[in-house]
Amino acid sequence: MNFLNICIAGLGNVGSNVVKTINQNHELLKNKASLSIKILGISSRDRLKKRSCNIDSYKWYDNPLDLADIQNCNVLIELIGEDKGISFELIKRALNNKIHVVTANKSLLAKHGSELFKIAENNNVSLLYEAAVAGGIPIIKTIKNSIFLNNILKISGILNGTTNYILSKMESENLSFKKALEDAQFKGYAELDPTSDIEGFDAANKLTILSTICFGSEINFQNNEITGINKIQIDDILYAKKFGYRIKLISEASIVDDKISCITEPKLIKMNNPLANVNGVLNAVQIQTDQLETLFLEGEGAGGKATASSVISDLYEIFLNSNILSLGYKVSNLRYFKKFDISESENSFYIRIMTKDIAGVLSRITSHFNESNISIEKILQAPENISENLPIPIIIFTHKVKRNLLIQTIDKIENLDFVLDKIIILNIDKNL
Amino acid sequence: MNFLNICIAGLGNVGSNVVKTINQNHELLKNKASLSIKILGISSRDRLKKRSCNIDSYKWYDNPLDLADIQNCNVLIELIGEDKGISFELIKRALNNKIHVVTANKSLLAKHGSELFKIAENNNVSLLYEAAVAGGIPIIKTIKNSIFLNNILKISGILNGTTNYILSKMESENLSFKKALEDAQFKGYAELDPTSDIEGFDAANKLTILSTICFGSEINFQNNEITGINKIQIDDILYAKKFGYRIKLISEASIVDDKISCITEPKLIKMNNPLANVNGVLNAVQIQTDQLETLFLEGEGAGGKATASSVISDLYEIFLNSNILSLGYKVSNLRYFKKFDISESENSFYIRIMTKDIAGVLSRITSHFNESNISIEKILQAPENISENLPIPIIIFTHKVKRNLLIQTIDKIENLDFVLDKIIILNIDKNL
Repeated sequence: MNFLNICIAGLGNVGSNVVKTINQNHELLKNKASLSIKILGISSRDRLKKRSCNIDSYKWYDNPLDLADIQNCNVLIELIGEDKGISFELIKRALNNKIHVVTANKSLLAKHGSELFKIAENNNVSLLYEAAVAGGIPIIKTIKNSIFLNNILKISGILNGTTNYILSKMESENLSFKKALEDAQFKGYAELDPTSDIEGFDAANKLTILSTICFGSEINFQNNEITGINKIQIDDILYAKKFGYRIKLISEASIVDDKISCITEPKLIKMNNPLANVNGVLNAVQIQTDQLETLFLEGEGAGGKATASSVISDLYEIFLNSNILSLGYKVSNLRYFKKFDISESENSFYIRIMTKDIAGVLSRITSHFNESNISIEKILQAPENISENLPIPIIIFTHKVKRNLLIQTIDKIENLDFVLDKIIILNIDKNL
Repeated sequence: MNFLNICIAGLGNVGSNVVKTINQNHELLKNKASLSIKILGISSRDRLKKRSCNIDSYKWYDNPLDLADIQNCNVLIELIGEDKGISFELIKRALNNKIHVVTANKSLLAKHGSELFKIAENNNVSLLYEAAVAGGIPIIKTIKNSIFLNNILKISGILNGTTNYILSKMESENLSFKKALEDAQFKGYAELDPTSDIEGFDAANKLTILSTICFGSEINFQNNEITGINKIQIDDILYAKKFGYRIKLISEASIVDDKISCITEPKLIKMNNPLANVNGVLNAVQIQTDQLETLFLEGEGAGGKATASSVISDLYEIFLNSNILSLGYKVSNLRYFKKFDISESENSFYIRIMTKDIAGVLSRITSHFNESNISIEKILQAPENISENLPIPIIIFTHKVKRNLLIQTIDKIENLDFVLDKIIILNIDKNL
């Protein structure tokens, strides 16, 4: 029998479930891995808060920083989740005390990971983070253990359950973005201040981590190009569906011309791509490598139990005394990549233009596309249920075109007197 | 820089791709993992056969058994693929010479794995087999590394690409089983003797391995209940579809009442279950644990490149000198489970009865169900396009019922004078 001595900072939903699971699965850990996990200390903001786990038998620390000084502790689990502040200080202190760290803190790693992973490496301990990306989906270990020696070409995923819930809800119940967001907040899937989710920052944090372990790039949140879902309208969801697409918030990273491209944006995904069928709060990741045409993983992106499963898988990795590096690479071997200029990218686009109900509109719009040599794949005017004098939507799917050329052309069209609204432009995924 | 010295027995599609990948990714292995893989020897049936890789620079052995005696060899890769015979002898010899072994040989492991894993353990070397199950999907490492400390409740998957291709093709092109099989043979997805695939043995081999690492059960092919797809008719595929289901060859393992249940059979899967949307030669696996409501992996189940990726991931595991046991468990800790009696299982069923076109048929059939207390969920008689005097299909979906009670009832109905054909019975998955 072997012991792993741990302490836990932060006893919210995930932390409580880690405690609960370790208790409930005591026999299982013993039988499957001859492992006994001992909790030497816990800390959280409010000792008396009602929790799903019983914490009476554990030593309480008012100051989480003190956890890093517990004697004979092997692993500190950081689940406070601050952007920097106490989370950063605590992890740094633990690593410097040669204590392994397991965290679910994506924002901290995406912004200050470089420093922390270096400290871990210098102290010959691990800093693991399976729970930081896609909750219960073991995507970090899949990349680090299973496909690490592949040449990874592209990773794309639905990395934020809140926004995926909102988009699914809009489609299934024909709701506005605002109504679907309110529903998500009511159900506890969205925070009172939903900015980080709906504007794509949370997904971009996760993509930052994924891009590092996929491509060996330095951890740099600034590599991200981010567009949220707050401007997605139900009309666009319905038009996309009519043409066999679903709109999803997709985070995608690849190396293009030896530059790094990390883009989080709402995108039209073909129905036959499994990413299009990931509904509700689920997350999913799709990977292409030189060896694998497709590898697709889907599972719970959040929730206490699922995320606790990932935390415990990191404890197991430490217990096995694995020689796998925390990032797959040595920190000193991570490469600086220039950021790919997104305006240079070639894509197909979905465009919705709201126009006045007058003659000649279509020919004036298409002549602008012709002038710019942008080729149109399909166009839809005058949909069903038109009442007179109401704005007319014109839906255009383009063939591949450089993004900046498209934007210039759309700017011109937007200035035409009969165009009523800001023109909607969405990227179309041409993957499968 | 570290070296891994290997030899390869069997240079078919997978073996050739292993050689090719090691050559092509020489720089990548160096940069990502400071790893250099040296091929010390190769062996195959025919030295002069045309291959996708160049083998001129490698030392050739006419007798594969001699590979196990090469000095300083770290890993032997067995890709001959015999059920026992030379594959068994070679692996045994290598393990006894303290050489790690990587194999894709599912049939050998499912039937003689117990002995081989014991030899590996006694010699303190690994016997790895990521490539033996679901080709390029890293399902073995996912279970062993990522969710091993979960209490795994159920694993179900599409583990055979050939049968999935045939079923997909039948549906998409309205083909008979025979026609679809011929097409699969023509395209090289099915062997000339397709028995092992279409009768479910190949999938059952893989399920045997999965059930061992999921539940710690002794490796025992006899635990399997196997039904192939050779009796699936296009009509059943179409009726299932009408009710929102797809027929898939599903391999499913779980522990029921402390007994092991390993079933491979064609099953009706609801369209919103991701398994229903795995088309063509792809494979997929779905896992439920005490911590995860669902984890779903999809990817290529065969093909040289994808399978070579799994072989190389095993080399990487050996290179990292991981402490993960080959089966997750010590062989001596594997448990004997009694086999679950399938006739005791409770399921919903799809039933198709072909009857003469006479009055009173429906009431006589349903009265038999009533007598047995089997509750019917839905029933469909007299479908479209009926010509007079043609047999009438009656489609019945039952609620949950014990399998043996259902079989008894169906036996009685089959004896009714107006029933024309063997009655079709298929299990309905009630998972999601």
